[in-house]
Amino acid sequence: MADTIAAISTAIGEAGIGIVRMSGKESLNIGSKVFKGNKIENLKDGRNRELLYGHIIDKSKDQIIDEVLIVYMKGPYTYTREDMVEIYCHGGIISVKKVLELLLNEGAKLAEPGEFTKRAFLNGRLDLSQAEAVIDIIRSKTDKSFQVSLDQLEGSLSKSIKEIRNILLEMIAHVEVSIDFPDEDIEEVAYEDLENSGRIVMEKIEALLNTAERGKILRYGLNTVILGKPNVGKSSLLNAILRENRAIVTDIPGTTRDIIEEYVNIDGIPLKIIDTAGIRDTEDLVEKIGVDRAKETVEKADLVIVVFDVSRELSEEDYHIIELIQDKKAIILLNKTDLPNKYDEKFLKELVRDKEIITTSMTTGLGIDILEKSIKNMFYSGEVEIFSDTVVTNIRHKNQLEKAYKNIADGLTAIKSYVPLDCIEVDLKNCWENLGEISGDTVGEDILDKIFSEFCIGK
Amino acid sequence: MADTIAAISTAIGEAGIGIVRMSGKESLNIGSKVFKGNKIENLKDGRNRELLYGHIIDKSKDQIIDEVLIVYMKGPYTYTREDMVEIYCHGGIISVKKVLELLLNEGAKLAEPGEFTKRAFLNGRLDLSQAEAVIDIIRSKTDKSFQVSLDQLEGSLSKSIKEIRNILLEMIAHVEVSIDFPDEDIEEVAYEDLENSGRIVMEKIEALLNTAERGKILRYGLNTVILGKPNVGKSSLLNAILRENRAIVTDIPGTTRDIIEEYVNIDGIPLKIIDTAGIRDTEDLVEKIGVDRAKETVEKADLVIVVFDVSRELSEEDYHIIELIQDKKAIILLNKTDLPNKYDEKFLKELVRDKEIITTSMTTGLGIDILEKSIKNMFYSGEVEIFSDTVVTNIRHKNQLEKAYKNIADGLTAIKSYVPLDCIEVDLKNCWENLGEISGDTVGEDILDKIFSEFCIGK
Repeated sequence: MADTIAAISTAIGEAGIGIVRMSGKESLNIGSKVFKGNKIENLKDGRNRELLYGHIIDKSKDQIIDEVLIVYMKGPYTYTREDMVEIYCHGGIISVKKVLELLLNEGAKLAEPGEFTKRAFLNGRLDLSQAEAVIDIIRSKTDKSFQVSLDQLEGSLSKSIKEIRNILLEMIAHVEVSIDFPDEDIEEVAYEDLENSGRIVMEKIEALLNTAERGKILRYGLNTVILGKPNVGKSSLLNAILRENRAIVTDIPGTTRDIIEEYVNIDGIPLKIIDTAGIRDTEDLVEKIGVDRAKETVEKADLVIVVFDVSRELSEEDYHIIELIQDKKAIILLNKTDLPNKYDEKFLKELVRDKEIITTSMTTGLGIDILEKSIKNMFYSGEVEIFSDTVVTNIRHKNQLEKAYKNIADGLTAIKSYVPLDCIEVDLKNCWENLGEISGDTVGEDILDKIFSEFCIGK
Repeated sequence: MADTIAAISTAIGEAGIGIVRMSGKESLNIGSKVFKGNKIENLKDGRNRELLYGHIIDKSKDQIIDEVLIVYMKGPYTYTREDMVEIYCHGGIISVKKVLELLLNEGAKLAEPGEFTKRAFLNGRLDLSQAEAVIDIIRSKTDKSFQVSLDQLEGSLSKSIKEIRNILLEMIAHVEVSIDFPDEDIEEVAYEDLENSGRIVMEKIEALLNTAERGKILRYGLNTVILGKPNVGKSSLLNAILRENRAIVTDIPGTTRDIIEEYVNIDGIPLKIIDTAGIRDTEDLVEKIGVDRAKETVEKADLVIVVFDVSRELSEEDYHIIELIQDKKAIILLNKTDLPNKYDEKFLKELVRDKEIITTSMTTGLGIDILEKSIKNMFYSGEVEIFSDTVVTNIRHKNQLEKAYKNIADGLTAIKSYVPLDCIEVDLKNCWENLGEISGDTVGEDILDKIFSEFCIGK
């Protein structure tokens, strides 16, 4: 970590400001080599954390590179805990590129993806789950997923993991004392205490695991497919949902629609509508992409919304669709209820069995609110809508929690069967280590590399 | 300008940092309402220009919006000359959007495109040509166009315009004195002085106008079309040019190729290859898009590179192409010179008349360097390659300069014919005003609105 790293930290595009940042021991030196201030000429003469106005200059060519603001932040009270310099250039492509090149010429090393945050982690500013929250924050698509990641950055998951690990550590200490100073009376109490503590650990891990499904949806969106034969009202449905739940990006002035426009936001739940284009372009997804592809699409979906047209009789296509969704989470819409009804509703109910059925009319807007409520209910599965602070959104965390759960469950079984304490200790230690991989206390270099390689450059 | 404005000032995208900025009297008040610092709790307790670490908080809901750095910069030593606050949030979509929304809720007004820079202009920090340079800097595509815009921001054009206007002002004063205190002897001297000064003004305007063609290319790129019948080596040529003159954006880590990949950079001259896809996908542009469209494309081009295959005889298609480029700036490549020559070079030379002919082989790379040199020569038209500081890149400026040129030319003719001084004064004043529209000294509100509406938001 002797290197001083530099990178562009803002998105590339036409914009007012672009940032180039540096971290490491040489930041101040390199920064003062390239900067010439107006009021305070030398960066070194500025105060810690004071924004100075001036120019970045390639002194070898006596050439002005850009007009900038610059700030030096002395470690350890910085993002990386190292000395840092941030340069606020003109936006666009050229300025940040030229300033970055100059810093690299002066001895800075191009930062790898996530290297700033990795340093923050390695220098103890963040634990690993907090570091991972940073990229989730940047990638989040709705306010709720943002909030959950922000909570994680603020340490909500870290705190839970620490709590559980502390209980485990006490248990392990308890076990070791009993091994070192065997005493039958104490040992009996030991087993009883261990069982109590072990149960608490298991419950806490389970509680976290219970949030993981919701967390996955918050992070990746609820993959949703709208199915139905031609002219049942699929695109009207999509438009109705889009109208009331504007695609996330469209309300930011100056951004374009098409970045993530297939996302809609149902009260904080990101719905990712699969094959939107398919729905809009032709009225018939199944016909267009073929039954096999339709099957595949449905299989990938977390939720299928099926639209039936009650003004026409059930057709073979409808039966096809019902077959496709047999084992899926699905909501059935009986649409066009403003028209005369030709459906055998009872028969249909038998066919779709346990699925929820909602009566709608896209013409009058009937039922849309119920559909949205239904999606919400499905997501929160009856729980209160306010999140506990901690939601597990990361698949890596989920996998570690599952391993930890298995180990503590094994341990509990062993405790209940009065297996020798040194055997129990193995389970407890494994559980403790599984959780340590979430916080990063026991994580290997390879996993770290993998995690940070998924970051964007400049963070 | 009583409003305090706010906007997102960085490009929207997954990135480390996003900036929301405010300008106006209420900046500090609004900023302190939404910020809670760690070491220094209240933004008002921080020093001017000191970066504080803490959180943006929606106090009405007691909810953390993001973890940020924030700075308050007291006017008038700021970009807009007003009080400003800048908030450095996490990158991505949600954080900047939520922070902006909060600022708007607390009383800030959403900034219009270019409104920060417009205020900088209205408050006298920049003249209009400097303000216009800001957006050119952000949009620039090569180092050279960036440098020219930066020079303009630093005041190079402003200085030239001011110089010329000062001479004009002296001339006008001279004229008025002569009108007020008529004296035949003085009057004769007056005409002579006026002629000398007028000639200087005209020369200076002409010199600026002479840079405009180059300036236009720097700003918008040299529209280039590669023409040739199938299999003459058009795509090999494109690849050869691309290989040695990487598309501008590709060398910035973390950016994608396709943003402006049709630009290549020949020693600072941005070449915009038209219909690249056409060249790559099929070997035959003319056949693919039809003769009419090809004609149109050629007409729009600043430069046509025509490729002939000397290993085959001239065909009807070749004659078509030669006809198309009759009146265009064009460079002729005789390609595949590594193969046996079947061309009647003398005949071809007669056909293309004054066009430059270069012998090439895409297989061996022969001639590519000569082509590039030739493009450069064409651009600099024999001038030294080092730019004078001032290059007119803006069409609005060019138009004003042309008007000014016409007025001073008329004035000079009038002077030479000893037309009464009050008539001459009209020409001089017109010229002075034409130039004032460049610096913004005499510009109307409608033109201002138009100029700044082309800016991006947040600048």
